[in-house]
Parts: sequence; structure tokens; C-alpha cells
Amino acid sequence: MYRTNTCGELRLENLGQNVILSGWIQKVRKFGGMIFVDLRDRYGITQLVFNQEINPQLRDEAEQLGREWVVQIQGTVSERSNKNPNIPTGDIEITVSMLNILNVSQTPPFTIENESDGGDDLRMKYRYLDLRRAPVRSNLELRHKMAFATRSYLNERNFLEVETPVLIGSTPEGARDFIVPSRMNPGEFYALPQSPQLFKQLLMVSGFDRYFQIVKCFRDEDLRADRQPEFTQIDCEMSFVEQDDILDVFEGLTRHLFKTVKGIDLPAFPRMSYADAMRLYGSDKPDTRFGMSFVEIKDLTEGKGFGVFDNAEYVGAICAEGCAAYTRKQLDELTDFVKRPQIGAAGLIYVRCEADGNMKSSVDKFYSPEDLKKWAERANAKPGDLLLILSGKTEKTQKQLNELRLEMGSRLGLRSKTQYNCLWVVDFPLLEYDEELNRYFAKHHPFTSPKPEDVALLDSRPESVRANAYDLVINGVEIGGGSIRIHNSELQKKMFSILGFSEEQAQAQFGFLMNAFKYGAPPHGGIAFGLDRFVSIFAGLDSIRDCIAFPKNNSGRDVMIDAPAKVAQEQLDELHLKINSVG
Amino acid sequence: MYRTNTCGELRLENLGQNVILSGWIQKVRKFGGMIFVDLRDRYGITQLVFNQEINPQLRDEAEQLGREWVVQIQGTVSERSNKNPNIPTGDIEITVSMLNILNVSQTPPFTIENESDGGDDLRMKYRYLDLRRAPVRSNLELRHKMAFATRSYLNERNFLEVETPVLIGSTPEGARDFIVPSRMNPGEFYALPQSPQLFKQLLMVSGFDRYFQIVKCFRDEDLRADRQPEFTQIDCEMSFVEQDDILDVFEGLTRHLFKTVKGIDLPAFPRMSYADAMRLYGSDKPDTRFGMSFVEIKDLTEGKGFGVFDNAEYVGAICAEGCAAYTRKQLDELTDFVKRPQIGAAGLIYVRCEADGNMKSSVDKFYSPEDLKKWAERANAKPGDLLLILSGKTEKTQKQLNELRLEMGSRLGLRSKTQYNCLWVVDFPLLEYDEELNRYFAKHHPFTSPKPEDVALLDSRPESVRANAYDLVINGVEIGGGSIRIHNSELQKKMFSILGFSEEQAQAQFGFLMNAFKYGAPPHGGIAFGLDRFVSIFAGLDSIRDCIAFPKNNSGRDVMIDAPAKVAQEQLDELHLKINSVG
Repeated sequence: MYRTNTCGELRLENLGQNVILSGWIQKVRKFGGMIFVDLRDRYGITQLVFNQEINPQLRDEAEQLGREWVVQIQGTVSERSNKNPNIPTGDIEITVSMLNILNVSQTPPFTIENESDGGDDLRMKYRYLDLRRAPVRSNLELRHKMAFATRSYLNERNFLEVETPVLIGSTPEGARDFIVPSRMNPGEFYALPQSPQLFKQLLMVSGFDRYFQIVKCFRDEDLRADRQPEFTQIDCEMSFVEQDDILDVFEGLTRHLFKTVKGIDLPAFPRMSYADAMRLYGSDKPDTRFGMSFVEIKDLTEGKGFGVFDNAEYVGAICAEGCAAYTRKQLDELTDFVKRPQIGAAGLIYVRCEADGNMKSSVDKFYSPEDLKKWAERANAKPGDLLLILSGKTEKTQKQLNELRLEMGSRLGLRSKTQYNCLWVVDFPLLEYDEELNRYFAKHHPFTSPKPEDVALLDSRPESVRANAYDLVINGVEIGGGSIRIHNSELQKKMFSILGFSEEQAQAQFGFLMNAFKYGAPPHGGIAFGLDRFVSIFAGLDSIRDCIAFPKNNSGRDVMIDAPAKVAQEQLDELHLKINSVG
Repeated sequence: MYRTNTCGELRLENLGQNVILSGWIQKVRKFGGMIFVDLRDRYGITQLVFNQEINPQLRDEAEQLGREWVVQIQGTVSERSNKNPNIPTGDIEITVSMLNILNVSQTPPFTIENESDGGDDLRMKYRYLDLRRAPVRSNLELRHKMAFATRSYLNERNFLEVETPVLIGSTPEGARDFIVPSRMNPGEFYALPQSPQLFKQLLMVSGFDRYFQIVKCFRDEDLRADRQPEFTQIDCEMSFVEQDDILDVFEGLTRHLFKTVKGIDLPAFPRMSYADAMRLYGSDKPDTRFGMSFVEIKDLTEGKGFGVFDNAEYVGAICAEGCAAYTRKQLDELTDFVKRPQIGAAGLIYVRCEADGNMKSSVDKFYSPEDLKKWAERANAKPGDLLLILSGKTEKTQKQLNELRLEMGSRLGLRSKTQYNCLWVVDFPLLEYDEELNRYFAKHHPFTSPKPEDVALLDSRPESVRANAYDLVINGVEIGGGSIRIHNSELQKKMFSILGFSEEQAQAQFGFLMNAFKYGAPPHGGIAFGLDRFVSIFAGLDSIRDCIAFPKNNSGRDVMIDAPAKVAQEQLDELHLKINSVG
């Protein structure tokens, strides 16, 4: 038996017990005739003491112990003279009577502490050592807890977890697929799923009624900080439901997770239309931890000779509370911020609503204090506040104003990682027009149902058709999204034709789904949550990478195992594949 | 709202309630002015009644309803005059007041009944309709329940579910990998994991202590009835454990599943050495639902002039209780059975221990009744029993006798699908010698630890070294297997050298694991269960295919979605791949 207890559980009430512990050497400190050792395992740290006076030979053995060695010890639980209130086992120590070295360790390439001295690359190469660090491990413990709590919640509500296949067919619609050559069917390929979308809809046709799966999905995309080639979804689908049924169940799931995992009781989630989200925040995933919503003032600015506003389609303001005293330098910083190429505004107009009631702006030449007061009134600005104003094409300017709003939120400390604001964004547009490719794309995906009251517009004004589609947004991050699906094969056919599929193409790619719809498909809809992002939000992480055990870098490489890699010629031969020279 | 209740829950206590149901039309029966409809959903079947006298127009509408149409109805719960005790809702029916046709259905290509008229191919092509059948769906419900109960059990015991990557590197050892070309790293490939073996061991090095994962694994093998290219494992690993610790935890899991999912209390599982399993049953996965273990009688047969036995290395018997009266034809059938090329015995010797005490055998010419009585005694044969005897090379003959034993068990009805006999087979050999390739292979895998007491034999007699490896066998099916791992990098290096790896090869393929072992690897071990087989055993299925939602056929094809398939030239170009002409 390697241990009677873990390194996290012994307390004063265990005084005098003879125990066996196993773990890693975290730290060795020598104090005259005594050696103190911190022994670590997943559950905590327990102090060991080797006392020259009690057992000189054992104390000498302990002298050799190094960081990260693995040892088993036997000893007696004693009360510490020097208690450590910072750890749960801080009242006790083990007076060691037996030491068994299970494994030695080379000096690790970085320190195994909460704050490590290892850089990103080194920590990724030795990920198995990085994972020993408590903050990294706790992210994965959190991930386990969230996945488990999700399954419990859905299981209790009659959802069945059904595994859908990983080796499926490639569909050109959407992002790029990873493909897998088939040896038994030479020249043919499987694809890895970007989501189990089609299979979960088929399960609804099969009468499964309530499906979920926590499932790996794959996208061969160029990677950014918040993207991984393989990622995990909480994928769900329900039959005989309307949009509100789905929102209710999954708002319930989200609140259940906050309650059971973080002990937080959340109020009901507000619901905001996509149109309002764009109008008030310039984003379909507004961060609602703070206000500062947009105010349109175009009508108040016209005809005073300021060409920039007069020629603009849109003039929008946000009110930064208590910022009237911003210095020239601070205002210049904000101007530089909105003029950065990623944001691309031409400039920034400000109005200081000074504490004494005076108005000072960068457009005093064109507008009287009375003009500016009208703007301030509309924006609910009080003395001491600062108006920040952008203008231009509506959509573009709203996006710029969104960036500025988020920046101001950060500067003002309004985006705390321990505050959680959840929001449903609903009534997304069904379609998006791509000017370059001269065709419509599905905003969500081609199986999303238009709102019944908008179906008549499908022929005349497709761009204004709203979908039964919804996103769950937490703190400005899209955590999940879904839709009520089309369950009628004629409407699905029409949708494919609007998206520019020929009947043959639609049949070739989605024939099995359209056929399935001919045999009694029920009304159905669903949602998928990005588990990686959900965990990151709970953990307060900036990147999803830190809540993944073995993530890949931005080139899609696992630097620890050095994959991908070349394969043997015989493997390629068996697959009838040749590699083109890479130019 | 599509429904107030499911089709499975209304009872007499709901009499008079106004309800809304949605579901599929299972059956329509006309009785004069009445139309009775069975409405089906996942939860059950409820009878609807359309009564001419109450609502003639609605009755006429109901006339058009066809099999598998999807409808929503409103009505009142009434008591049936003609109760159906076979279904839980059989006491009530719904007097319909509103009918809403949600979707029509073409006539399905086969009947959606417990016993369908559809052949395998048709049912696989229309798998979404096959899944509507209650027996198919209940297999998947069972699968969900088992996975959920597994997670609950392990979660309660501090196991963390950690997701390991699906896109990893290819390792030539073991079965063939599926490989995935990397677009971002042209000419390089990921591989899909055959198991998360290396990652779970790294998690132990990381101090995760107790890991599990229910995870898809992949093997590009030629398929048999019980193999799928993608399959699911319950994969587990623990630190600071010995073999007994693992056996205890996972015997507990298995008993927990039997108890919670099937309501069966199982006794403690016997443990049998690999050597005994081979000696007594000629198999490392003996079916212990019945006895009939092997009896060696070589010593009793020698020197009587029967060359077949005299020249045989091994003479083994099984005793078939109560079969002394087998006819010539029955004995011929058994002889034909063992002579089939898949089994390959030269012939079968029998001894009838007749009810009157006489002995009759096919070798009466060589052996006296007294000789035969000695054989019978050793085999514990009573009057009325039949001895069946095979002889030849030891290992080969034991395998043949195993087949004969299983055949006799089936013929005698000793292999009931509702009886469950669990067995641990332990002390597997560490290595297997491959005569053809002239090298040793790891019997379990190269990370398996030899028994400490056998380590000294590694150099002198590697083939006799036993491993700390174990299998869980239920009813003759291997459900899971695992081992205590090597955690010492020197021993691991030695193991690779015995397996014929050069140091460079070992370093190239498993370098990251051997490096990890240098930084304080704890003693650890684990096990993996085949979920598909585990579910099949619980469901009494002959093939794992029936407990998989969307299985592939023997050519690795999903005939429903028609995958694998050709991909677009641009996809191949992006991956720098060319397909060799397939000759």
C-alpha cells in the first residue's frame, strides 16, 4: 500500500496517527538538526519533519532529497509548533519514521510553483511538468466539474448522450475540414466533424427527443489565440420545442453551472434582439457588465457646417462617466486607439461636460454650448462626464464605437473577471450577403428556420428575414448558439436554392437529411456551447489554451510530442497517396 | 407549446385532464364510426380516439393519417373500455378535440416495429428510421445509462475526466493508425489515437493521481463483425497503486453498473492466473458461466499402443454432463466441428460413461474399461456423462478443446445471456515471441511492468517473465484490460531494447515519455474497458454494431451518409497530396 492518506487531508484531529503518504518533494528546508520537507500531491501539501535527535540516519537520508523526487514516507501526525494558516494542513506535520525513494528527478527546466519562471514555449514542451502547477491543474479540475455538472443536469431532464461518428463525410459548406484517407476505400476520404449538426438532427427524426453530447469537433482553420484545431462542444438538440423552450432549458443549465461550480446565483438572463444589440452596442455579443450604450445624435448635429457629421450616415456617442477631466494625453491615446488600422476610424470627437456645467469639445468651432447640451441630455451625461463620438457609415462606425466602448470599459475597471453578465441575443438575420462572392450565406447554418412571420419575405427581401436563432453571451464572449431548425423538406430545399446550391449539389451533400425529412421529421431545435470558452470564462482565463490539457500552438503543433510529423513511406503507399513537392 | 405530456406518462389518475400530445402515428385502426390511433414518442404509446358521434369533421380528418406522420393533438384523458395491460398507458385513451398535422411521411421502406421486415442493408441506409424502433433505441438508452453511471462512480472516487488530444502523432508499434494530413505543416500528418495510453501516463507524471475518460479511439484494421474503425473506451489510470488497488476499484465499478443499470447484485469476482486459464480452459478469456474445465489425461493413456495419444504432447478431456446417450449423428457433428479448418483438430475421441456403469469409447480397441474408468474418475464423470478428448501439441490442442467446450456449452444451454459471470485473468506473460518476425512483442503493450519477482529473468528467459497485467472477462468476452506500468526510465529503456527498438527508434517514438520519467514519475497503472462490448453484454447483443448509433459496415463505410467519399481537387492541392492510381 503506497499511502493511507493523501497530502491534503490530515488535520489536528488526526494527531498521533501512524500514516503513510506518497508524493512529490516540493521544497526542502534545513534548520540545524531538522529537515523540513513539503510533500505534494493533487490534494495538497503536507509538511514532513526529519529530526536528527529522533533518527539521525533518516535525517541524513533526507539530506539528499531533491525537488520533484517521488517518495513514500511513514510517520506520526504531530502538532506543528509553527503553524501555517495558509494551507489546510498547516496545523500538523509528519514526524517521519520511514523514507522510501520511489523515483528521483532531474532538476525540472522551470519551477513547479504557482508563478513559474518558465516561458510559454518551455512550459508547452514540458507540459507534463507544467500540469503539476496548481493553477494549471485547477483549470482542468474546473473543466471536469463543469462537464460533470452539465451531464447531471441534462441527464435529469431526460437528455440522452449519444455518440455520433468522428469519421464522417466532407462538406464544402462552412470552414475547412480535416480529412482522413481511407485505406479500404482507396482515393476516398473521411472528414472529421466540425459539429455533429446533421447527426443530431437525424436523431430528432429518429424520435430521440432530447439529445446531448460533450464532443470533440475539428476545424482546419488558421489559428488565433482563441482557436484550436480540435475543440469541445456541449452539443444539444430537442424535439417538439419552440425557441423559448430551448432558451429556458439552457438558461437553466447555465445558472445550474454557476450555482454548483462557482456558488453564484444569477438572475434571469435578459433577451436582446440582434437589431438592438447592433444599435446599442455595435456587436452581436455585447459585454453587458457595464452600460455606456450608444446614443445616436445625427439629427442633433446637422446643418451647423461640420462636414464630417453632415456627410456621415451615422453619428453615435457613448458617455464615459466621470471622465470630463481626461487630459489631452488621455484623449490623444483614445484617438490613437480608434485610428489603429484594426479599428480604422478617421478621428474621435469629444465633449467634456465639465463639473461647473460648462461644455468643452473638439468641435466648439461648429457647435454652441446649447447644441452640445442637447447631445449630453440625450446621452444622459451629467456634469463630470465625457462624451466620445464617432461618425461615418452606420455599420462600420458602430463596430468602431463598440471597440471604443470596450476599451473605455477596461480603462474604467468595469469589466471585472469575477462579475458575470449573461445575455441572450435573439432574432439574428437568417442570411448574410457576401458582396465579393455575390451570394447569400447562412448567418448561422443552412438548417436554421426563418421566423414564420418572415417566411413571406424569403423571395422579395431575403436579407431582412429574421431567423429563429439565438446566442448566449457572457461578458461579451459568445459561449453558445443555436436555432430552431427547418423540419420541412420543401423549405429546406428552398433554403439551399437561396444559398446558391443547385439541386444536384444539395442532393449530393445533404441528400440524406432532406430524405430523412420526408419520413416524418418533428419540429426541433438546439444549441451548442463551446466548452473550452465556457471553462475559460469560469476560470477567468484570457485564452482557451489554458483549460486544455494538451493544447496545440498557433501552427497546429503539439510541441511536446512533436506532432504532426512525417510518416513512413509504407503508410502512404497503403493509402495510395503521394506528397506533392512543397514549393 | 407542442405538448403538455409525453406519450408515456398518462394514467387513470389523469382522467378528465385536457392534454396536448405530439408524436408519430404508429398505427391507425377504424371501427365503424371510430378511428383509433396509436401515437408514439420516445417515452411510450398513447391511444387516441376520434369519434364520429362527438366530432364527425375531426374523424374525417383523421382518416387521412398515415404511418409515421407527425401530429399534435389536444384532447381529454378518458378511461378505455377495452384496456391493454401490455403497455403502461393501456388504461386510458385521449378523446381528441384538435388535430394538427406537423409533418407528413412517405411510407417507410420497412416497418417501424420491434421486429422489422427490413434487411440489414436497408436498415443501415435508413438508420434514422431504424433508430425509431424501440429495441434499437433502448440499446442506446442503455449505453447512455452505463456511461453516466460510470462517470458518477468515478467522479465520486476523485477521478478527473481529462480530454486528451485526438490529433496526435503516428506510432508504428501496434495496429495501423488512421492519419490526417496537416495543411499548415505540409508533408506532415497527425494520427488518430488507438488509445490515450501515453497521455494518461503523462497525466500521472503530472500528478493527476486519478484520471478517466470515455473516449473515441481509432484503428485502421480489416473489420470483422465485432470491430469498428472507431470505438469507445472507458480509459482509466491511477497513481500510487498496486495491481490489487486497480482490481478493487474497477471490480467496484463493474458491480456498480450491474447493480444500478440492471439491478443485479454480483458476488466478488474470482481471479485466475493466465497459466490456469490456459490450462483449464485453453483461453485467456474463459466463459465461466459453466464448468467443463479441461482434464489432462496424457499419463493415463500412455503405453497402450494408441499411437495418436502416445505421440501427442498433450491429451485433454472435457466432461459433458448427461451426454452419454449422444447418438452417432451427434458425435459425428462434434467431430466435424473440431475438424473444421478454423479449428483444425485431426479427430475427436469420446468415452460414453453409460448409465449402467459400462464404458464405451471410440478407442475400445486400445483401452480396457478399467483404463477408461480411470480417465472418467479424473474428469469427475458420473454415469450418464460423456468424455470428449483431443490430443496433439499442447497449446494448439488446448485452443481446439476451448472451441469444443464452448460449442458443448451452447448445445447444453449453459450460456444464458441473462447470466453474468465475471472473472479477472491476471499474471499475463510480459512478452510474446513472434517466430516469423523473429522478435519479441509486448503481450499487453511496451509500457507494462514485469512482476518485480520476475525482473531477474528479463535477460535469461524473457518469455517466462510475467507481467502485472490483467483482463476483466465477462461470459467469455474480454471487456477490459490493463496493467501496472513501468515508471522507471531505465527499465523502460530495457523493455524497448528487448522489443528490438534501437535507442534512436525508441527516442524518436517515445522520447517524450522516457524524458517525462526522468522528472519524478510515480508508480502508476490503469485499465481500459471497451464500452461498445460492455454495452453489448448488458444488452445481450451478438454484435457491437447494434449499440452504436451510426455504425460502419465491414468495408468501413457509413452507407447512410455515403462516407468515405472523394474530395474536391482543391482540398487535395491545399494538403499537397496526390492520389496514386489505384491498380
